[in-house]
Amino acid sequence: MAIAEDLAREQRSISVAEFFEKNKHLLGFDSPTRGIITTIKEAVDNALDACEEAEVLPDILVSARRVGGDVYRITVEDNGPGIVPENIPFVFGKLLYGSRFHQIRQSRGQQGIGISAAVLYAQLTTGTPALVISRTGAREKAHRYELMIRTETNEPEVVSHTEIEWDRTHGTRLEIEFKSTLAAKKRLLDYLRLTAIVNPHARITADIDGDVTAFERASDEVPPCPRSILPHPHGIEFGALKRLSDASSGTVEEFLIGSFSRVGKKTAEEIMGLAGLKPSRKAKRLSADELKILLEAMQGVRVPAPPAQQCLSPIGEDLLCRGLEKEIQLDFVRARTRPGAVHGGHSFIIEAAIGYGGNLPAEGSARLFRFANRVPLLYQQGACAITNSVMQVNWKNYGLPQQGLPGGPALIMVHVASTNVPFTSESKDAVASIPEIEREIVLVLQELGRELKAYLSRRERKKQQDDRARAVCSIIPEIAAKVSEIVELPLVDTSPIEGRIMQKVVLKKRTVDGRVTIDLNNYTTKEVALTLYSLSGDEAGDAEPRPDFVDDIGGEYNKVWRCRLGAGEAWRVVYTGAGDGTIDLRGVEDAMRVVVDLDV
Amino acid sequence: MAIAEDLAREQRSISVAEFFEKNKHLLGFDSPTRGIITTIKEAVDNALDACEEAEVLPDILVSARRVGGDVYRITVEDNGPGIVPENIPFVFGKLLYGSRFHQIRQSRGQQGIGISAAVLYAQLTTGTPALVISRTGAREKAHRYELMIRTETNEPEVVSHTEIEWDRTHGTRLEIEFKSTLAAKKRLLDYLRLTAIVNPHARITADIDGDVTAFERASDEVPPCPRSILPHPHGIEFGALKRLSDASSGTVEEFLIGSFSRVGKKTAEEIMGLAGLKPSRKAKRLSADELKILLEAMQGVRVPAPPAQQCLSPIGEDLLCRGLEKEIQLDFVRARTRPGAVHGGHSFIIEAAIGYGGNLPAEGSARLFRFANRVPLLYQQGACAITNSVMQVNWKNYGLPQQGLPGGPALIMVHVASTNVPFTSESKDAVASIPEIEREIVLVLQELGRELKAYLSRRERKKQQDDRARAVCSIIPEIAAKVSEIVELPLVDTSPIEGRIMQKVVLKKRTVDGRVTIDLNNYTTKEVALTLYSLSGDEAGDAEPRPDFVDDIGGEYNKVWRCRLGAGEAWRVVYTGAGDGTIDLRGVEDAMRVVVDLDV
Repeated sequence: MAIAEDLAREQRSISVAEFFEKNKHLLGFDSPTRGIITTIKEAVDNALDACEEAEVLPDILVSARRVGGDVYRITVEDNGPGIVPENIPFVFGKLLYGSRFHQIRQSRGQQGIGISAAVLYAQLTTGTPALVISRTGAREKAHRYELMIRTETNEPEVVSHTEIEWDRTHGTRLEIEFKSTLAAKKRLLDYLRLTAIVNPHARITADIDGDVTAFERASDEVPPCPRSILPHPHGIEFGALKRLSDASSGTVEEFLIGSFSRVGKKTAEEIMGLAGLKPSRKAKRLSADELKILLEAMQGVRVPAPPAQQCLSPIGEDLLCRGLEKEIQLDFVRARTRPGAVHGGHSFIIEAAIGYGGNLPAEGSARLFRFANRVPLLYQQGACAITNSVMQVNWKNYGLPQQGLPGGPALIMVHVASTNVPFTSESKDAVASIPEIEREIVLVLQELGRELKAYLSRRERKKQQDDRARAVCSIIPEIAAKVSEIVELPLVDTSPIEGRIMQKVVLKKRTVDGRVTIDLNNYTTKEVALTLYSLSGDEAGDAEPRPDFVDDIGGEYNKVWRCRLGAGEAWRVVYTGAGDGTIDLRGVEDAMRVVVDLDV
Repeated sequence: MAIAEDLAREQRSISVAEFFEKNKHLLGFDSPTRGIITTIKEAVDNALDACEEAEVLPDILVSARRVGGDVYRITVEDNGPGIVPENIPFVFGKLLYGSRFHQIRQSRGQQGIGISAAVLYAQLTTGTPALVISRTGAREKAHRYELMIRTETNEPEVVSHTEIEWDRTHGTRLEIEFKSTLAAKKRLLDYLRLTAIVNPHARITADIDGDVTAFERASDEVPPCPRSILPHPHGIEFGALKRLSDASSGTVEEFLIGSFSRVGKKTAEEIMGLAGLKPSRKAKRLSADELKILLEAMQGVRVPAPPAQQCLSPIGEDLLCRGLEKEIQLDFVRARTRPGAVHGGHSFIIEAAIGYGGNLPAEGSARLFRFANRVPLLYQQGACAITNSVMQVNWKNYGLPQQGLPGGPALIMVHVASTNVPFTSESKDAVASIPEIEREIVLVLQELGRELKAYLSRRERKKQQDDRARAVCSIIPEIAAKVSEIVELPLVDTSPIEGRIMQKVVLKKRTVDGRVTIDLNNYTTKEVALTLYSLSGDEAGDAEPRPDFVDDIGGEYNKVWRCRLGAGEAWRVVYTGAGDGTIDLRGVEDAMRVVVDLDV
């Protein structure tokens, strides 16, 4: 007993603030360098979430400035709805406090830990309180708080609180100081750029120690805020079911219909039938054993998947492609959004994009961009289910070399949107290896892989055709020269033949006896819409067909014809003139046209 | 304001139990299969820690049995000091409650989360309370509790509490039921085997659904329980310093000497001089700015590293080698324990071992065993600083192929012992990438790599010599045969020549005219201690030297000589006799000896 009592004297509660102070690396504060990024990320996440909830176009200022020694002041200010004054101390000064934890919908913040962890880190490293200013509307005063966290109790400590004037009509500003470095400045800017890509409705202005970068908004539409849904009958566990039924005041039938998503009268009846329960029983009166039977029945009945469209906010295929193309010049880009799926009762949607070519480096591994609920993931790539899934795909099937990750000039972007993203730690760096999620990622990448393969095959075929044509064309002029020598006639122009072999659009102009003839031949396999420009002293008043437009530039005439030529079709214009000046053809890329002016 | 108020209605506290119920994968309960391993691991960790604290040789029973459907009952029982009855509900029914969180010393449990997480998981999946029996001594009754956790408040709920008779005089038994599978049975046994290796003083008996495996103790010594130390002046941060000084009643000098490890009068004076503080100032009266200056002075002064030997309990080189050899047959094994080092003020020691050859598979990656504070790490190998460090070493320098991890018939074991192991998540699967830790791991592996390289070079040289000798020896008998043919004499025995070339121990017995001569020649490069057995009808009463031992077995005499021969030395015995019977030589492995009995 003596030993047990000795040991008992050491046993006591640990406050969650103490726990995370000691294990701050779990929250992304493992190094001073990283602290800056984590703080900005948590504050920007909150700002974007709040703006979305208030349907405001976000306007976010981010700044990190050295204030002396190795101490930096981090500031994040938004134009969100603001926070009511009574709640400010808790939002910033208490870990595990927030509005989004209990809601079943996609949001960036989920845990109610992030921003107060930054406050905790600041007071741990510099002892400085966090400064918060927030205003909830034009008719309200702004409130200014200096806040700390009482580590032993995880309760906020208000150092000062005043009402002040503020030029924003609504919004929140956080200033925090801690020891740090700007060694990860590039990573910080990467984070902001990626954030801007998947939140095109946000304007983010960053001042990193005097260096200002603005990420302008690309869209003026606020994406709809995902709406909370009820738990799904397939995803609930015994403990949660018991809490829900204890809190219910109705019958089992009312309980099932009212407390779960996708359960109507018919499904409820089916469940009760399977469980052998009378619909008139009061839900809160069910015994533990009856609840177990009810739970099994709920999971034994077919129920549609949760309404993913309502509670999730995927980025969308179009935006994924545009986001990537904005970031990097690419020859090929495709995106896919999968249908909604479920892991442990939580709705999720996987979307992904693949880019290829352009100015991506040909050597080394493909670039991988990971996102979860519209937030870029920057750290712990190796520990992430996204990386794991990318490596599970056999990329050699799709034309990419592979050593673990695929290689070559490729780029892969994966977004996991879920009502509950299972991160591997509170710092939200990596998605945990959940089989359902990995399966969906593999599927979407295989779909995209097939498209990439088709593109690469087309490109390869095209290249082979071109090589062959180029080989043939290179001997045609020599043959022509030999022939003209033998038959003692002037050398003929072989360009049109080359154009035909090379499958290009050929323009040919020739003037004989004061008559100018311009021929267009479309030897490609596609219809082309062409614009022909002829700038010369010829007025071409008798041209047939008539130019669509003639501009007299002081004795010179710029004549413009537009025509549309199907594959294999030809077009001709003839007019009286000297045939001097210049000629140009638009509507087809340079590599696909041959222009032959026999008058020059 | 309206929007902010709408949002405010959703804002509330989240209990730590709610948080971990939703994020149970953070605690290692991401799948039912894994739940069993995590539960047993947490319970065994606690049992080993408690036994160590009470200086008891641990005797631990582990059982996992199916009790119907997919529900398993997990039982872990130990002979530790027991838990005083008042504390039982908190130890098992409240997350973040424990005795080891606030102590600066190596222990398996650190967080006060693990075992209550198992209780939480059980009630979530099956609604069943956990059953705990504990007894603190022979004169006390055992106490039996049925416990649950109130998720909303993270407080224990005692379902029942009785005093009972129990056959153990002290110890604790936990029974828990949840949905699971035994799909990971092999991994579970691996975990227990590895645990037994690094805890050779523990007896662990496992009954996995009727399959009983016993891991007997290999040592009867309880390793000394690491003792708590004071914080180190280099590792403290502002927040913690402020709390300590607030709680101090003495002068700054007394505070420095009494509250920190490795700070004596001289160091304290140096710190105060640097900070410009009078030693007579009261510590609790220091302003925040003075504390900041004091902190800088503390970190600017040279202080020896924390007393690692006192607060840490490394496994030791000998035990590491023996542990590995017990596990796997190896041709080569070496271990190294590094001196103590510091990360963020926390003491740590890295030790590692390398094994090679034996029955390790020649193909594929080397096997990697990871340990932290004497606990094997089973999951998330890819996310672990240990793995990362192993991959940083250039193994090709040391004779192993490498593709990320080293390959070949090799085995690497790394143990991180620390007063605070920085895990990547609460499930304690992987060590976070802390540069100081990775550096030490790389250093110890490089040391071991050099030894491996020396061994492999020796082996290669030896193999070349042997090949050459074998080639020479294979023609000697032929030469001898030719010579005997030419000179028309009987064929001479060439074995001794071969023995000399092959560098072996050669025994040669020959009997001429009733005199038996036995010659021993040590042609190896090492001293050998040999035992010669001759079993025959010869009594050898006149043998010179005398046998060390003669046994008369009904007319047959077993004569035994012992001798020690340096490299190159020879030994001879001569006696009267017929020279029949058998002869044998011990003390040198079969491959290293040649026995030639010319009388046979």
